[in-house]
Amino acid sequence: MRDFSGDHRWLSINTATLRGAGTLDTIIAACVRQGVRAISPWRDQVHAIGFERTAELVRGHGLELSGYCRGGMFPAIDAAGRRAALDDNRRAVDEAKQLEAACLVLVVGGLPGALAGARQSKDLFAARRDVRDGIAATLEYAKSVGMPLAIEPLHPMYAADRACVNTIEQALDLCEALDPRPDDDTAGAPGALAALGVAVDVYHVWWDPKLEAQIARAGRARLHAFHVCDWLVPTRDLLNDRGMMGDGVIEIPRIRAWMEAAGFAGYSEVEIFSAENWWKRPADEVVATCIERHRSAV
Amino acid sequence: MRDFSGDHRWLSINTATLRGAGTLDTIIAACVRQGVRAISPWRDQVHAIGFERTAELVRGHGLELSGYCRGGMFPAIDAAGRRAALDDNRRAVDEAKQLEAACLVLVVGGLPGALAGARQSKDLFAARRDVRDGIAATLEYAKSVGMPLAIEPLHPMYAADRACVNTIEQALDLCEALDPRPDDDTAGAPGALAALGVAVDVYHVWWDPKLEAQIARAGRARLHAFHVCDWLVPTRDLLNDRGMMGDGVIEIPRIRAWMEAAGFAGYSEVEIFSAENWWKRPADEVVATCIERHRSAV
Repeated sequence: MRDFSGDHRWLSINTATLRGAGTLDTIIAACVRQGVRAISPWRDQVHAIGFERTAELVRGHGLELSGYCRGGMFPAIDAAGRRAALDDNRRAVDEAKQLEAACLVLVVGGLPGALAGARQSKDLFAARRDVRDGIAATLEYAKSVGMPLAIEPLHPMYAADRACVNTIEQALDLCEALDPRPDDDTAGAPGALAALGVAVDVYHVWWDPKLEAQIARAGRARLHAFHVCDWLVPTRDLLNDRGMMGDGVIEIPRIRAWMEAAGFAGYSEVEIFSAENWWKRPADEVVATCIERHRSAV
Repeated sequence: MRDFSGDHRWLSINTATLRGAGTLDTIIAACVRQGVRAISPWRDQVHAIGFERTAELVRGHGLELSGYCRGGMFPAIDAAGRRAALDDNRRAVDEAKQLEAACLVLVVGGLPGALAGARQSKDLFAARRDVRDGIAATLEYAKSVGMPLAIEPLHPMYAADRACVNTIEQALDLCEALDPRPDDDTAGAPGALAALGVAVDVYHVWWDPKLEAQIARAGRARLHAFHVCDWLVPTRDLLNDRGMMGDGVIEIPRIRAWMEAAGFAGYSEVEIFSAENWWKRPADEVVATCIERHRSAV
């Protein structure tokens, strides 16, 4: 396993971690000031300062993108809704490509309307069909431009409103069904990503009794991203009470060891949704803490 | 599938559903007044009015117990803690037996100390070892007195503090390891329960992509209990914001159909933790609503 204790060469900052600290240019400036070499930006933050401005900043600072957040949200109550989702995913692929992101992260969506608090369906099977069809269509386009897609299984507590893909096993079943020959994607290139893989976020999967086995099953070509934060005890909010690495109960180094044993050698991306704590702190403090914990607790 | 629309013959009330309505005698009186034939009481509520008083009420009203809540909480930081848990589980088995409960429900426990907000370990593997050993020891005693044990897989959001068994698949793996020949337990009696089985609570498992297959795998002899409530959108609290059947997104009849296709023919037990809604209402209103929704939404 790589030794992270001496530097933060392999740290990436997901810009959601600094949602409270200002706009994306402020966040990027804080990252650059402290020698962070990679980020993973969210589209709403990108669009808020403008895509071209973002691209200038990324290129100007020589930043790598460990991922681009996010595509997905495929299920809809009617054909028009599904078509709109596909169009938006196509734009997300294009943006990820222009920024040379390692992958486009897919948060696949849940029951139509649920995220807005007004569900239009209880049919989890229909939602999962929409997800499968949506990924298939997006994958075709993403392959044509060479942008790997990363399905992010979300914690089962988000099955209703954010993602009805909830385990790595389920995500890999989708990968194998929709992209059955990853070796064709990568042409055997060392370290190359399959066209369709998974983003492993410890927050979403740490509880899974099959986690080690499924990471091994994924293998190098399907492990597109590794996200870290921590599970706090108690957790006071389903969405926005995630912890800084080391402050909760997840044995992050154990999971990273499984990732690396399977061949993953990419960035460890810090993604923390924390409305009452980290989002209230200044950018420099948050980035400094991410660096410290990356070295001591990841 | 059984038709529940015409009566509430197969309704059981888990007494946690009426936590706000008073002591157990008040809760039982409300159930009896409205013709509920079965309950599943919690030990703290039983002990608050006295075990003998509870036994009198149960026998006097001819109530059946669809389960007894709860044993489990096996993981501990040291041998003394594990021994204390085993002693407590033995007492729970005895109480369940004296009340002629259908099964003792096991909420197996999570990381030691986490439920008290002061975790003493992050080692999920050690916790799962304690759970396995604790169930094995309790099973030996429970078999000797003829009390079936029901492992209740809890939603993964409780993995840290309440139960590190989080899917039916994981629970059934334990059943098969610790009680490999359920036919020996039941001696082929129709409807008889294996010594070790599962309690399927729709709230905990509705999201699981393998749910239908794992219910079928369990089969008649290992399906010890069926708990219902609903998943609200949004859910505002991890523990105590569960919904009345029909108010959320779970397709309960679909899951009940899978249970019955596998041979389950027991009670549908309503268990709702709802600090801000149902626990604030009078017992008669809650029971009446459970009856109505049992007929229309289960």
